[in-house]
Amino acid sequence: MESNHHYTYQQLAVFAEAVFLKMGCTDSDAALATKVLLSADLRGIDSHGIARLVGYVRLWELGRINATPDIKIVHETPSTAVIDGDRGLGLIVAPRAMEIAMEKARQVGTGWVSVKNSNHFGIAGYHAMMALEQEMIGIAMTNASALVAPTYAAEKLLGTNPIAVAVPAGDEAPFVADFATTTAANGKLEIAQRNNITIPFGWAQDADGNATQDANILKNGGALLPLGSEKEQGSHKGYALGSIVDIFSAVLSGASFGPWAPPFPAYVTMPENMPGEGLGHFIGAMRIDAFRPAADFKSNMDLWLNRFRKATPVKGYEKVYVAGDIERSMEIVRMQNGIPLVQNVQNDLIALAEKMSLYFERKS
Amino acid sequence: MESNHHYTYQQLAVFAEAVFLKMGCTDSDAALATKVLLSADLRGIDSHGIARLVGYVRLWELGRINATPDIKIVHETPSTAVIDGDRGLGLIVAPRAMEIAMEKARQVGTGWVSVKNSNHFGIAGYHAMMALEQEMIGIAMTNASALVAPTYAAEKLLGTNPIAVAVPAGDEAPFVADFATTTAANGKLEIAQRNNITIPFGWAQDADGNATQDANILKNGGALLPLGSEKEQGSHKGYALGSIVDIFSAVLSGASFGPWAPPFPAYVTMPENMPGEGLGHFIGAMRIDAFRPAADFKSNMDLWLNRFRKATPVKGYEKVYVAGDIERSMEIVRMQNGIPLVQNVQNDLIALAEKMSLYFERKS
Repeated sequence: MESNHHYTYQQLAVFAEAVFLKMGCTDSDAALATKVLLSADLRGIDSHGIARLVGYVRLWELGRINATPDIKIVHETPSTAVIDGDRGLGLIVAPRAMEIAMEKARQVGTGWVSVKNSNHFGIAGYHAMMALEQEMIGIAMTNASALVAPTYAAEKLLGTNPIAVAVPAGDEAPFVADFATTTAANGKLEIAQRNNITIPFGWAQDADGNATQDANILKNGGALLPLGSEKEQGSHKGYALGSIVDIFSAVLSGASFGPWAPPFPAYVTMPENMPGEGLGHFIGAMRIDAFRPAADFKSNMDLWLNRFRKATPVKGYEKVYVAGDIERSMEIVRMQNGIPLVQNVQNDLIALAEKMSLYFERKS
Repeated sequence: MESNHHYTYQQLAVFAEAVFLKMGCTDSDAALATKVLLSADLRGIDSHGIARLVGYVRLWELGRINATPDIKIVHETPSTAVIDGDRGLGLIVAPRAMEIAMEKARQVGTGWVSVKNSNHFGIAGYHAMMALEQEMIGIAMTNASALVAPTYAAEKLLGTNPIAVAVPAGDEAPFVADFATTTAANGKLEIAQRNNITIPFGWAQDADGNATQDANILKNGGALLPLGSEKEQGSHKGYALGSIVDIFSAVLSGASFGPWAPPFPAYVTMPENMPGEGLGHFIGAMRIDAFRPAADFKSNMDLWLNRFRKATPVKGYEKVYVAGDIERSMEIVRMQNGIPLVQNVQNDLIALAEKMSLYFERKS
């Protein structure tokens, strides 16, 4: 298995912020982008954290990311808005969208913002969780470049299109779901590739649509499978979910969608005849007390959370988790013990530091 | 395999409407309940159609369904409402909730209605599809009595908690997703039971949480599995989805939730210490032109639908479907050729007719 090098949150934050400043972000945008990016590393979603920093820089070098975007509302009603991200970092466009959604929720109960012309926004969970402190339910989703084959399809038409939903509670820790609408996120295949091991059946198919355990299959015409894996196990449901995310994020906003969603890796050529602008997100906020007195809701939500957390586990398992519990524990551990980076990521960051005349410590 | 008896839509509609009238529903409610109920049979979701009519009557006999409910808004903001279904048929409470959601969407762009004190509402897709004619996206979900074990749990805490999302288009037929957040709906186990066949792995677990192919396992302490089936195939995502439906439908409205959701079969005793009133639904409507000019959206949505419908299928499969395509075809076939009822359902309806002094034709 791969060896890890541990860095403190502070070390990674100082470096990431310096990189965003070098790109030309304002001080506040650099600080925000860093916080959003590293929330992934803290929560154990390593594929979406500092490992992607180099990728953002490459897109900026190509002019596909604008470090000083003029993010603006292009259409709105009391409960909705479409915003144009002006090719900004999704890491700052999405929090802006959530601010607008929450302001609308304060006014009329709920707010729903569809975003076009954006880029990769880090983990969906960060944006959804912004609502928690405001006693709101937060919702965040994004489309992404096509890696997923619909049920019965031999081609890739959807991204891993994650959905996050954060629900506040009273005394109990909140409910925070954040998941790709595929059986496995692409990051899990990348881990298997690095460790040179096979992947379980149900994660991917080969170019002809056959089951495969080859972790490298996406480089050879293969595709990720929607949540459910096979038709008999409900893959048409995962396919429908991924479709909903694509439609809400991109068709509703005027972003590019389906197989035309812009790719994250800078070396992948942009799709031809793109029907919209950039990547799309869909962000929602619902004020709890737009439905019930917040105290009543929180009391019931605590009961809900407690009942599920205390559920009888299957023999051999210690406990039953609620969505977000594992990530919350990880956050505490990594804030204390540091964030492990694999060798490739460390190498990438050292090379990035050299290119940008910054310093990134090599640890062995 | 089981043999079927074919009835025309009109025959079943006349009978169902007469039953609802005998229960004391108003003329318009009986007509609406019939239309919602039979939309399931037409669309091929046999478990949620006329096969359930006897079940609704039994709940009415027990006083758990109120045939003349006073459905009212108990709390609202410009974009939200909670409605009390007054123990009415979900078949009429949910359409009322969607009317309210759409009226709010007309006023402020979107409308979101959480419903308490309701009962089984038929197929979620019917309610979501109400929005299509109004150039709105429709969303409908409901909680249900606990049949599903969370990931790692040895007990049943969630219902099959379906989600429906309907999206209008221009020239193309609309996108209509409607699915249980489990790997397989309970109706599929019932079909396997009647045919005395096993079920695929991944649909259910036994009382100890082990994999099983026994279609009768739910009667012996077993549970349905969330979409994804196993942790390694993403069952925690299906569990999160089912949780979201439960929270939005029941915790947000003040309905009963989780293991305390009221059961549909009249012979199952009600849970003790129910934390809320009745079953809950969550209904949403988003006006397309609250985001973009409707013509632009429809043009892009047509492109989306056309691209997915024309996707290259895996060898051995004829084509790739968009959510709702198979149900739409089924609706045309069954409107023309009739609706097949299995022997048990025919027997149930004949017995119901006798009890209510109505007539239901026996076909052989």
